[in-house]
Amino acid sequence: MTKIIDPYGSALVEDYEKLIKDFGLEHFNLKEFPDGNKLMRRGVVFAGRDLKQIAKAMKEKKPFYVLSGIMPTNDKIHFGTKQVVENIAYFQKHGANAYILIADLEAAAARGVSLEEGKKRAMDFHIPAYIALGLDPKKTTFYFQSENKDVVRLGFEFARKITLNEFKAIYGDADPGKIMSAVIQAGDILYPQLKERMPGIIPVGIDQDPHIRLTRDIVRRSKDKKFFLPSSLYHKYTPSLDGKLKMSKSHPQSCIELPEDPKVVCKKIQRAVSGGKATLEEHRKLGAEVEKDMSFELLKQHLIEDDKELDKIYKAYKSGKMTTGELKKLTCEKMAEFMDDFNKKLKQAKKINKLNFVKF
Amino acid sequence: MTKIIDPYGSALVEDYEKLIKDFGLEHFNLKEFPDGNKLMRRGVVFAGRDLKQIAKAMKEKKPFYVLSGIMPTNDKIHFGTKQVVENIAYFQKHGANAYILIADLEAAAARGVSLEEGKKRAMDFHIPAYIALGLDPKKTTFYFQSENKDVVRLGFEFARKITLNEFKAIYGDADPGKIMSAVIQAGDILYPQLKERMPGIIPVGIDQDPHIRLTRDIVRRSKDKKFFLPSSLYHKYTPSLDGKLKMSKSHPQSCIELPEDPKVVCKKIQRAVSGGKATLEEHRKLGAEVEKDMSFELLKQHLIEDDKELDKIYKAYKSGKMTTGELKKLTCEKMAEFMDDFNKKLKQAKKINKLNFVKF
Repeated sequence: MTKIIDPYGSALVEDYEKLIKDFGLEHFNLKEFPDGNKLMRRGVVFAGRDLKQIAKAMKEKKPFYVLSGIMPTNDKIHFGTKQVVENIAYFQKHGANAYILIADLEAAAARGVSLEEGKKRAMDFHIPAYIALGLDPKKTTFYFQSENKDVVRLGFEFARKITLNEFKAIYGDADPGKIMSAVIQAGDILYPQLKERMPGIIPVGIDQDPHIRLTRDIVRRSKDKKFFLPSSLYHKYTPSLDGKLKMSKSHPQSCIELPEDPKVVCKKIQRAVSGGKATLEEHRKLGAEVEKDMSFELLKQHLIEDDKELDKIYKAYKSGKMTTGELKKLTCEKMAEFMDDFNKKLKQAKKINKLNFVKF
Repeated sequence: MTKIIDPYGSALVEDYEKLIKDFGLEHFNLKEFPDGNKLMRRGVVFAGRDLKQIAKAMKEKKPFYVLSGIMPTNDKIHFGTKQVVENIAYFQKHGANAYILIADLEAAAARGVSLEEGKKRAMDFHIPAYIALGLDPKKTTFYFQSENKDVVRLGFEFARKITLNEFKAIYGDADPGKIMSAVIQAGDILYPQLKERMPGIIPVGIDQDPHIRLTRDIVRRSKDKKFFLPSSLYHKYTPSLDGKLKMSKSHPQSCIELPEDPKVVCKKIQRAVSGGKATLEEHRKLGAEVEKDMSFELLKQHLIEDDKELDKIYKAYKSGKMTTGELKKLTCEKMAEFMDDFNKKLKQAKKINKLNFVKF
């Protein structure tokens, strides 16, 4: 039986290779994507669906889109969200039309955030934060779910195309709230194709794959062949600092948010799971288990752009030349630099007042 | 086990008393509603839910609302829809704030009518037709489902408040399309209370009761007591002219639409099920079974306002003094008059260009 990934759960996926096999994903092939970003180069981006049609559009300079959503629930961004923005920025640089939707309906229903409040949070924080993280606002179309009647209409249409059993097969279970969210998300995913039929890629955490599969099933069964099957790109979770779960706001001590005081973050890093040995002597002799070290994971996934620099640290730590204390100190410094840079860019981004919003 | 009424089916309900008992409805009490319209006086309006809060608001001249929806699928109105409009007009006359929503999302999803086309049909035909049938446009607020983000937001919110099993218990079964429609309808039903907390009444065919029950369940379980439980008012079906099913567009020979050529309608009336006896002799001797006569049903439900006039016809036909041919001739004449009047009023109503639309 196929394992069902619950997009609402928080279990860390241990075996990504198994996932690829179980879910019929494709491996991400770096050769097909020129100038891959650090997530792509380092295997954090590990798989996708229908990646060839995107690589082809990029190569032939044909139109395609990249889409993602913002849930304006509070005034922080999950540190892991950074990865999605990095991937969006990558595709933007390579010709994609970017679409960013603000899931204000979802935020209202799931978290009781009024549409007005959701709008305010998106405008005052989330959108500037995405820009600070690399989103090019000039090449991005934004919209609010609640204001996009085409999306709601598509959701309605799609709801009629799926059965309860199909929904259960994809999501594991079905309840009215999940169904409603899912069909509207399918509307979001395909919406850019209403104006121009073109392939599109959705960069998501692997936990969001059910939405991709549902949308692809809906497209497959439409007789009018109106839509391209959406492509997807999956990145591994940013692990929780305790190494056990994916990073989640519900475990604040093991989670880093944006923005967050670097001193507070450094304390969390000090407590994070390390790959170092119990004694210095042993460490010098045997070296670290780098793969288990959450500080190194932060450097790899988030804080060091240059592969050579990362490789140097890897080797020094692996050999035992670099101690856990040194690695943590370095991580704290890099994190402080990153936070500082983010805050500066955020401030700049807040001044931008020309955004391309879909108007109705 | 409680019998489940399927709002999507078309079975004629034989035993309305049983329905009242099975579904825990209240009998409609004419004494509580001053100057009852002909549907109320003649038992076509037969039941409701929470009618007292509406009677009370009327008596105390406190704010309340009446709400109904238009499905802009084609350029005809089902003859039975007339009853709903008559009831809306009744409550309007007695102080209700009327709300008419255009279910363009539903029409798009269920019948493939584009939002633009749905809007055009509503503006060019359905709204003027409602006005021609007695709706007072000055006292009516209109909106398009697709443009009312508060309704969509409420639908989202409500979807999270119900379980699949509750939905199945009310509707008999559950599929994503039904669920989506139902929660948005619950949003429609409660929407007028967002601006002002007040009771409201929804006049519907009994087949629509599941939507009422679902909405009442949703209200009951909200902790904030934000909404009054919606009241409802049920009218009997206008039977199909063959006496077997409720009148439905899918059986055009047994269905009357608005507008329709009176000559065509008269031919349908000629073929309609009658209560007359097989021979004239027998008819004169035993009289007609008026209750089975679909022409008389048209007179009673739709074409004769004056109770005394109707009573005279009833007695003449019942006694055998009036023949089936005479009754049908009279029905054809009344129908032609009605159609003529409707067409004139429709023409007038199309000239109205000030309608109170909710703007966002």
